[in-house]
Amino acid sequence: MNLQRKRMLDAILKQNGLGALLLWRPDELVLAIGYMPLWGLSFLIYTADDKPVLLVPELEPEDILPKNITIKKFPWGDMFCEDPWKVLFDKISETLIEKKLHHLPVSFIKNIGGTSPCRMSGEQPPLPADLTDSLSAITEAGYKDVTQDLLRLYSYKTTEDIQHLKLTHKVGAQAVKTFYENLKPGITEAELAGLIEYEVQRMISQEEINFSKAWPMVQSGSNAAYGGRYNKSTGRKFQNGEMVMVEMGLCVNGYWADITRTGQTGQIDVQHKQIFYTVLEAQQKAIAAMKPGIRMGEIDKIARKHIEAGGYGKFFNHALGHHVGFRYHDFGPTLSPGSDAVLEEGMVLTVEPGIYDEEINCGVRIEDNVLITESGTQILSDYHRLLTTQ
Amino acid sequence: MNLQRKRMLDAILKQNGLGALLLWRPDELVLAIGYMPLWGLSFLIYTADDKPVLLVPELEPEDILPKNITIKKFPWGDMFCEDPWKVLFDKISETLIEKKLHHLPVSFIKNIGGTSPCRMSGEQPPLPADLTDSLSAITEAGYKDVTQDLLRLYSYKTTEDIQHLKLTHKVGAQAVKTFYENLKPGITEAELAGLIEYEVQRMISQEEINFSKAWPMVQSGSNAAYGGRYNKSTGRKFQNGEMVMVEMGLCVNGYWADITRTGQTGQIDVQHKQIFYTVLEAQQKAIAAMKPGIRMGEIDKIARKHIEAGGYGKFFNHALGHHVGFRYHDFGPTLSPGSDAVLEEGMVLTVEPGIYDEEINCGVRIEDNVLITESGTQILSDYHRLLTTQ
Repeated sequence: MNLQRKRMLDAILKQNGLGALLLWRPDELVLAIGYMPLWGLSFLIYTADDKPVLLVPELEPEDILPKNITIKKFPWGDMFCEDPWKVLFDKISETLIEKKLHHLPVSFIKNIGGTSPCRMSGEQPPLPADLTDSLSAITEAGYKDVTQDLLRLYSYKTTEDIQHLKLTHKVGAQAVKTFYENLKPGITEAELAGLIEYEVQRMISQEEINFSKAWPMVQSGSNAAYGGRYNKSTGRKFQNGEMVMVEMGLCVNGYWADITRTGQTGQIDVQHKQIFYTVLEAQQKAIAAMKPGIRMGEIDKIARKHIEAGGYGKFFNHALGHHVGFRYHDFGPTLSPGSDAVLEEGMVLTVEPGIYDEEINCGVRIEDNVLITESGTQILSDYHRLLTTQ
Repeated sequence: MNLQRKRMLDAILKQNGLGALLLWRPDELVLAIGYMPLWGLSFLIYTADDKPVLLVPELEPEDILPKNITIKKFPWGDMFCEDPWKVLFDKISETLIEKKLHHLPVSFIKNIGGTSPCRMSGEQPPLPADLTDSLSAITEAGYKDVTQDLLRLYSYKTTEDIQHLKLTHKVGAQAVKTFYENLKPGITEAELAGLIEYEVQRMISQEEINFSKAWPMVQSGSNAAYGGRYNKSTGRKFQNGEMVMVEMGLCVNGYWADITRTGQTGQIDVQHKQIFYTVLEAQQKAIAAMKPGIRMGEIDKIARKHIEAGGYGKFFNHALGHHVGFRYHDFGPTLSPGSDAVLEEGMVLTVEPGIYDEEINCGVRIEDNVLITESGTQILSDYHRLLTTQ
């Protein structure tokens, strides 16, 4: 297992007198052991010894299971098993008895929004309605709440996580290339979104990539004016001389990037060009100031002040950035007005200023994913970010 | 609103003495009012009067909001609002007071697996952790559980739902066409899956389609042997003379189809051909027997007996079918061994026999979506289903 992560998880167990952590949401499993489940029905019994146990449904593919961990199976998917969930709960209980941890409480996150999807992302996993009640009763020592400790882990990427995130961003490079290559009048937003998805999914044949999906959303011309409220692709055809924006939540093997680029379909007018460069400069100034020890509110302020000075302050209607990596949007303090949280080495944050409004009839956002290093930053998504590649 | 659906919802309110139903999951909203939310943070206060209220976040796009309903907004997404959820709960409470329904209990589904994704499907919606507790306390009359009544609604598609499902299946036709056209040696599973996704997403420019996604998963040759356990696309290249299977959970504007086809890349051997036709015959026999009044277990038995007679019984390791339409997999009794539930007019079910195993080194499933009519069936996915279109 990832030893840096193991130290963090072990510390939570020790400080709270816990026997085990129970983890099952896709992003929790990626964070703990780098495993993105297919069915979303796998349960990690994380204990401080060398062999945590992963309980997976019989139907789960073998080739995506993590190594160096004990795998046990339960009969979900067996047409003739009346209650696979009872078997699961019994197996968790037995595992804790075997490890002599059944006199200690367990912990897990009871209820939380924003969970990342499993590989079968067309629907959320069919978890039983009484799941958290059943897990709370799994040992006589009951449940102890350490939710805040667990959520804090999302803000720190280990060396191993960063290697995975670099692979995700390699796929991101292909996505951004496809975006710029297809900025031509006549193509629809949905068509370009579909093309990017195609290029990203077919990369599954390369390197260690076994899951690759981009969820791209493209907004063009006047549609991009709503890009600060939502992102979605429509059947609108690109016109000549307008700006087009793509937003992507790109997931490779369970590790996420969140990238936005804005390009042009042909020469745009002076005001739109000025808006574009105001956003780009705000972003570059903010990134240049990032390093360990700086307050997050300070970074937001640098970008916001630059946009205000350009006269577009009221059109930058969201925070500057958020943690990213285990989800499209990770937990943790954001780069937002007044935030006193401080940047630390190992954090990965989006930096995504934007200007959008019906009044100016356009929308621009440029979004990169920035790793905080010992002395400054490394931009993981350091691709082309101008209006055109020509 | 859809009057057929209104009658069913009103009956639940009346029979249980409820003031309102609170619905927010994407499939619940599609079922009730045909609306697929973008953020997944919209709340329908369903009351028996003519103007139910839909509370949407300020960021929700206007053009996807349902007509003939009262829309109210709450400030989720407003950077300067400290607690948008408190505003939401207050607005729900005020609405019930205005309608003089605050002395009656409310109901909703507390916890359920399998929810369909919202339009922003890269992550589940960031709903607050205390959501169901807060909603239970929204009126002094509290909460009353009618979960089973609500879940039963998934099994009956109204005339309006069927019109929507027909549009979904029009997109399905294009997906299936793309599948057959690209069954060529050298293409990878992930590449074909990506191509289908591209063709499906770009249909957003046509008719009333404003959301279109297929989540295709392609398994070829020996990989398809696992098609009864899971579906996923890999970087494996199609070889000449093998079978390839595609599984899709196809969603158009919130209405779902679940379709599988198996084709060949070139002449396949005699045993594989025999397996293919065993599956096809089992499916066609089962569909031919479907009509109102027949037990679901009976339909499963017809397909299963045919496969057993062919000698492949142990390789058909799942149920024959399930309800579909508001989700990839809707609630309700399945076409499975021993099921005493009875087919009724207005149900839409998948019929999906399969034969897969490492021992036979292949996998075949053929899956169609079948509407039960007054006198028999209508196959919504009545596309080509042989090994090749040539």
